[in-house]
Amino acid sequence: MSAPQTGEAASPLQICRIMRPDDANVAGNVHGGNILKMIEEAGCIVGTRHCNTQNGDRCLAALVRVEKTEFLSPVFIGEVTHVTAEITHTSKHSLEVQVKVMAENILTGAKKLANKAALWYVPCSLQNVDKIMEVPPIKYASAEQEEEGRKRYEAQKMERLETKARPEEMMPSPPNPEKHTVGFSQSSLIHLVGPSDCTLHDYVHGGVTMKLMDEVAGIVAARHCNTNIVTASVDAINFHRKIKKGCVVTVTGRLTFVSNKSMEIEVLVDASSVVEAEKGKYRAVSAFFTFISLDKDNKPLPVPALKVEGEDEQRRFDEGKVRYLQNKEKRLSDKMRGQ
Amino acid sequence: MSAPQTGEAASPLQICRIMRPDDANVAGNVHGGNILKMIEEAGCIVGTRHCNTQNGDRCLAALVRVEKTEFLSPVFIGEVTHVTAEITHTSKHSLEVQVKVMAENILTGAKKLANKAALWYVPCSLQNVDKIMEVPPIKYASAEQEEEGRKRYEAQKMERLETKARPEEMMPSPPNPEKHTVGFSQSSLIHLVGPSDCTLHDYVHGGVTMKLMDEVAGIVAARHCNTNIVTASVDAINFHRKIKKGCVVTVTGRLTFVSNKSMEIEVLVDASSVVEAEKGKYRAVSAFFTFISLDKDNKPLPVPALKVEGEDEQRRFDEGKVRYLQNKEKRLSDKMRGQ
Amino acid sequence: MSAPQTGEAASPLQICRIMRPDDANVAGNVHGGNILKMIEEAGCIVGTRHCNTQNGDRCLAALVRVEKTEFLSPVFIGEVTHVTAEITHTSKHSLEVQVKVMAENILTGAKKLANKAALWYVPCSLQNVDKIMEVPPIKYASAEQEEEGRKRYEAQKMERLETKARPEEMMPSPPNPEKHTVGFSQSSLIHLVGPSDCTLHDYVHGGVTMKLMDEVAGIVAARHCNTNIVTASVDAINFHRKIKKGCVVTVTGRLTFVSNKSMEIEVLVDASSVVEAEKGKYRAVSAFFTFISLDKDNKPLPVPALKVEGEDEQRRFDEGKVRYLQNKEKRLSDKMRGQ
Repeated sequence: MSAPQTGEAASPLQICRIMRPDDANVAGNVHGGNILKMIEEAGCIVGTRHCNTQNGDRCLAALVRVEKTEFLSPVFIGEVTHVTAEITHTSKHSLEVQVKVMAENILTGAKKLANKAALWYVPCSLQNVDKIMEVPPIKYASAEQEEEGRKRYEAQKMERLETKARPEEMMPSPPNPEKHTVGFSQSSLIHLVGPSDCTLHDYVHGGVTMKLMDEVAGIVAARHCNTNIVTASVDAINFHRKIKKGCVVTVTGRLTFVSNKSMEIEVLVDASSVVEAEKGKYRAVSAFFTFISLDKDNKPLPVPALKVEGEDEQRRFDEGKVRYLQNKEKRLSDKMRGQ
Repeated sequence: MSAPQTGEAASPLQICRIMRPDDANVAGNVHGGNILKMIEEAGCIVGTRHCNTQNGDRCLAALVRVEKTEFLSPVFIGEVTHVTAEITHTSKHSLEVQVKVMAENILTGAKKLANKAALWYVPCSLQNVDKIMEVPPIKYASAEQEEEGRKRYEAQKMERLETKARPEEMMPSPPNPEKHTVGFSQSSLIHLVGPSDCTLHDYVHGGVTMKLMDEVAGIVAARHCNTNIVTASVDAINFHRKIKKGCVVTVTGRLTFVSNKSMEIEVLVDASSVVEAEKGKYRAVSAFFTFISLDKDNKPLPVPALKVEGEDEQRRFDEGKVRYLQNKEKRLSDKMRGQ
Repeated sequence: MSAPQTGEAASPLQICRIMRPDDANVAGNVHGGNILKMIEEAGCIVGTRHCNTQNGDRCLAALVRVEKTEFLSPVFIGEVTHVTAEITHTSKHSLEVQVKVMAENILTGAKKLANKAALWYVPCSLQNVDKIMEVPPIKYASAEQEEEGRKRYEAQKMERLETKARPEEMMPSPPNPEKHTVGFSQSSLIHLVGPSDCTLHDYVHGGVTMKLMDEVAGIVAARHCNTNIVTASVDAINFHRKIKKGCVVTVTGRLTFVSNKSMEIEVLVDASSVVEAEKGKYRAVSAFFTFISLDKDNKPLPVPALKVEGEDEQRRFDEGKVRYLQNKEKRLSDKMRGQ
């Protein structure tokens, strides 16, 4: 069991798919949510394949965390997206998958980097979904590589311990909200979890949930600025609780912060079983999405200011501003370090 | 132009398709909304084909009304549904399509009648969607047949004039509603209209809207009784306003009336353009869906009573009871007349 | 058992469906893969229905072979495709279904023949998927018809015995291939088999596999010539091994031969279980697709020559040329015989 993995199981995996009209909005931009769904599908396959190279129960790699990710270039209908997924770290009970998304214009041959992401999975037994299996170790190219992976592992473990599911309820919007207030653009959708949302066991794939979250966040952003909007980035997401087939999920989004050229939207995902309603609703996931508004040439447009009302909205606005400034600073320092 | 159509143009059309897991709920019952969508697709094809057998602008048959329809037998995954659509009446600017849905178990050969429906279409020019074209007349088998069709035409015209879009707003549910109240099961979803929702022009097919309505009504019903629920019938639906590509539709459902073994759910569909928000929301469609609750052998189960709160809910409950009793009486008299 | 079938069970079946934006490429041409999927769905329904008209285990008609088929006219978004399937021959353990695809423009009324295909099915027991059931015989219109069917049966049986799954591995492309080489356009996709890919049992429908194959072949063709490309024909396909739910399929395509106006692409389908990786990958299907390149008026364009590198590519090119010349000759002789 402790022998280093070699060969196929730990080798990178490539998914590619042509982008269709339904993957995109009216302006032809592929929804960020569809990219996230492909990323997660690749991660799930490579992770599940790796964890089943050992003896013991068959298992499925379940998504527990996605690190902050940025959408670096827009992807359009007719382009082919290539998603490459590779296992980059393993601990006793979890593994990290790094994923890169390239978009290729097959008519001109032009390629661009659309996204880079890192996902954490844990192997759940298919016999008993609450049993976490052990992860076979991978072989590292160097001791440095192993050490860096271990640091990422410790950092995300710390963060997951600190972050609990936000207990905060999202209040229904007032009946006739004023334009550009939080209540005006707040939106929510419900989705009945069907067989296609789940593949190998009866639980929703993390990628399906992220796609729904992006959809709601996009509607919130479009309602606020009435233009073509696209996902710019998503903050780290922790998947607190699994969502089962037959559940109704309620996905609600509201603006928390608006800068000159971006909107931060908080998205909450609540699940409840329709047949076991006595178990009540529970918070399954929450995350912050950042959207930008684009003109016809895909250049960023200014965003209308947010009309903040009441203490709670002000507090969330201030917290959002802190995140915005931290991200901005990080981008600058990454740039200076030549990344 | 006034010559009666004969032969192929007015001949019946058959659609058939195998039912997949994605068409059904967790218990294997195909969603009524998918049956409604297939019915409307067949009606749209046969109507559009007929209206284009004349000179003048090319046109698309747009759905304006569906008569009350009942789901006579449940349909299951793996069965093949056969949808037959036939033009049964034409007026100067509208046509009636009658549709029959048979479900065939291809393993046993058993067939059953799943649904019968009547739909009214008007031909809209593809050059100018607000221009209503003329409908080429069909040839009737007998003078009686023509006369009966004319009566149905007059009856539905009267009803469409009388029924206006319900101006009533649906209020958000209170934060912590008690079980079995209207607020407890009230649900709503939002959907961004994509290219696949529209085919030949930029407006949503009526069948797509009905599928979304059935989905919300089903979630409301499941939340009320926490069992396997299926669509039993849908009252006549008038399509007041068209919904364009790029719109966000909000579909909201709430219980209005509950009898011993059935639930009536009012569903409202509002649309608004995300890029032209100043035009505001408008009521596009509204309808009443009736659901029943089933046990494991597909036998009807008793439904928990509805806790009615306030004058508005009581008024809607009383109105629902009148519809329920009228439908019951009609079913009895149809039975006695041997239909 | 030897009583000739009469009436409904062996009667032709018609499927029809309006073509949506998602069925087509950016230029509006419906993908050949979607036509193949509809063809196979019709064949599976008519075959399964027929094989269950006898006593014994319930069974499903499983696709084992599709004869060479040509795409005679392009199909566009908004057109209605009519797929007619009829059982034309039965042997003890297999049956032949002939399928015709008409595309109808419902605005102009124009109809055209889009495809004609012949498929071979064997009935697999639903209780035990490895048990092949007997096929009830059909009634032939004439002794000649029966005799011709028997010849087609013998010919395909011989070919299926001769053809083994191609053991050849597809090598990964070199890192920076030169334009118009085989390595430059070689492409592969992976797909995790979900519940909707399978209907009545846990194995993938042949039509789903063919759609994936067409998708990959289309990407290869587009990369080679950077224009609007469409499927022109598909050589006979043998389905060697079944693919189960929960498998990952890898579909890889590479150019083998390029003539003045057409490209031949070899497509290999390998399957492996993600949870039982120790069982390894197996070759499930392989086939040759021919694509042509079209200008804006749907007229064929010249195709860039293929830069062949190494002995293996040259051998495959020569083999492809032989197939190309044989097909050309056959088309000519069919034309002269007035087919």
